[in-house]
Amino acid sequence: MGEVPPTHPRYASLMARKRLTEAASAGMLAESALIAHGRGEAFDYLLGERTCDAARKAISEVAARLLSAEKPVISVNGNTVALAGPQLLTCAAVLNCPIEVNIYYRTPERMEALLSALDLQREEAMLLNPEFRQQISQVSILGATPDGRIPNLDGPRANCHTEGILSSDVILVPLEDGDRCEALVAMGKTVCAIDLNPLSRTASKATITIVDELTRCLPLLLDDLINGMLNPSENWDNAQNLREVTSEMLRVLDDSL
Amino acid sequence: MGEVPPTHPRYASLMARKRLTEAASAGMLAESALIAHGRGEAFDYLLGERTCDAARKAISEVAARLLSAEKPVISVNGNTVALAGPQLLTCAAVLNCPIEVNIYYRTPERMEALLSALDLQREEAMLLNPEFRQQISQVSILGATPDGRIPNLDGPRANCHTEGILSSDVILVPLEDGDRCEALVAMGKTVCAIDLNPLSRTASKATITIVDELTRCLPLLLDDLINGMLNPSENWDNAQNLREVTSEMLRVLDDSL
Repeated sequence: MGEVPPTHPRYASLMARKRLTEAASAGMLAESALIAHGRGEAFDYLLGERTCDAARKAISEVAARLLSAEKPVISVNGNTVALAGPQLLTCAAVLNCPIEVNIYYRTPERMEALLSALDLQREEAMLLNPEFRQQISQVSILGATPDGRIPNLDGPRANCHTEGILSSDVILVPLEDGDRCEALVAMGKTVCAIDLNPLSRTASKATITIVDELTRCLPLLLDDLINGMLNPSENWDNAQNLREVTSEMLRVLDDSL
Repeated sequence: MGEVPPTHPRYASLMARKRLTEAASAGMLAESALIAHGRGEAFDYLLGERTCDAARKAISEVAARLLSAEKPVISVNGNTVALAGPQLLTCAAVLNCPIEVNIYYRTPERMEALLSALDLQREEAMLLNPEFRQQISQVSILGATPDGRIPNLDGPRANCHTEGILSSDVILVPLEDGDRCEALVAMGKTVCAIDLNPLSRTASKATITIVDELTRCLPLLLDDLINGMLNPSENWDNAQNLREVTSEMLRVLDDSL
């Protein structure tokens, strides 16, 4: 891929692809990671590549839940670190919570690559948000020495940290796998997912689902986290929110006819 | 990815992924190939992962055009060879036409990997369709020594063979890029595309677009080619066919509400 000017109409999408293919070369991603990203691109296309009203509501709700949590945590996988590691470090800094690397196909090499990448991304996060420089430097990055397991989940993908995911009450988990989403909800946690497919198992199982592109919704989430003062709604209807997003996709597809 | 039993509800999709990730490891694919496959998966999901009526009509029309062509040719890229090389060799055998490797990001290494893979896939094609053993062994595989160029296209992606793409009248080109599709149509060729995104530039620019998953539609196309006796319709309305496919996607999405 050659140099793409920031004025290119698909700049954000092309930059996301570049970050991911570089991460793949660096050994940070599982084999199926680029395919999963492509699926997301198609659904984003159906959203008109913009944050719809239903997604905006979900973002504020997620911010409210994270701000009112006792022990929030941000769980990240390979694609998430590649696309938005610095932004999530800043969210963690504002929330004063840990980031935990928790991947589906766990190998020592991938874990090491992801933990190193996140540590290096602190610099980028500080450049983007210098006002949180101090807090960003102190964000705890977990994943290297898991001492607990997510119940009802097979294999190494269940491994997690007691001080991180295991004891958390509210978990922000972008691009999560359906099985693990279900297992975390079964533990009684408030699971806040970010997933572009409103029909996916993750989207339907999570407590709150933001159906939006990761790098587009995180600045909005960060705004809400910094502004604070949001109250969680007492009766969040996630299924209804997903129907609103799906209706938006129907409108975009219908307009193309 | 572990062993997947053929009874798994998503067996075909998981096998396609396996073939592609293996092809990526073998150096057959460009960086963006797996992302493109993922986009296709999402659109196929919206088709209910089945061949819709509009696609079935397009398949028969493509068979009719190929059978009545003076000089048909099949143009393949990395994903096409990885997913369906043997099936396309059999189509070429029935049509007695060449297959030409014509890729967007052309490097000597990728060309060599693809040409070798196709040559090895003759064996698989013969096992699948032993009645065409003789013809399959004689299919000409072009791409190694291009001596012509597709007009109005920049760079090495324009390179092609005079005895293949350049002099063809009807071209079957699965998973084509929008620019090249447009350039081929501008040359006056009948371009038969296979593309899961009914809104893509390739889908809208091609003479006939089969909106279906490659490995699912090729056995149907092969049936039509073998049965022969199809007449090309005089007034094929590709835009109307694409609207019918999009309406099918709307129905699937609407049913999920």
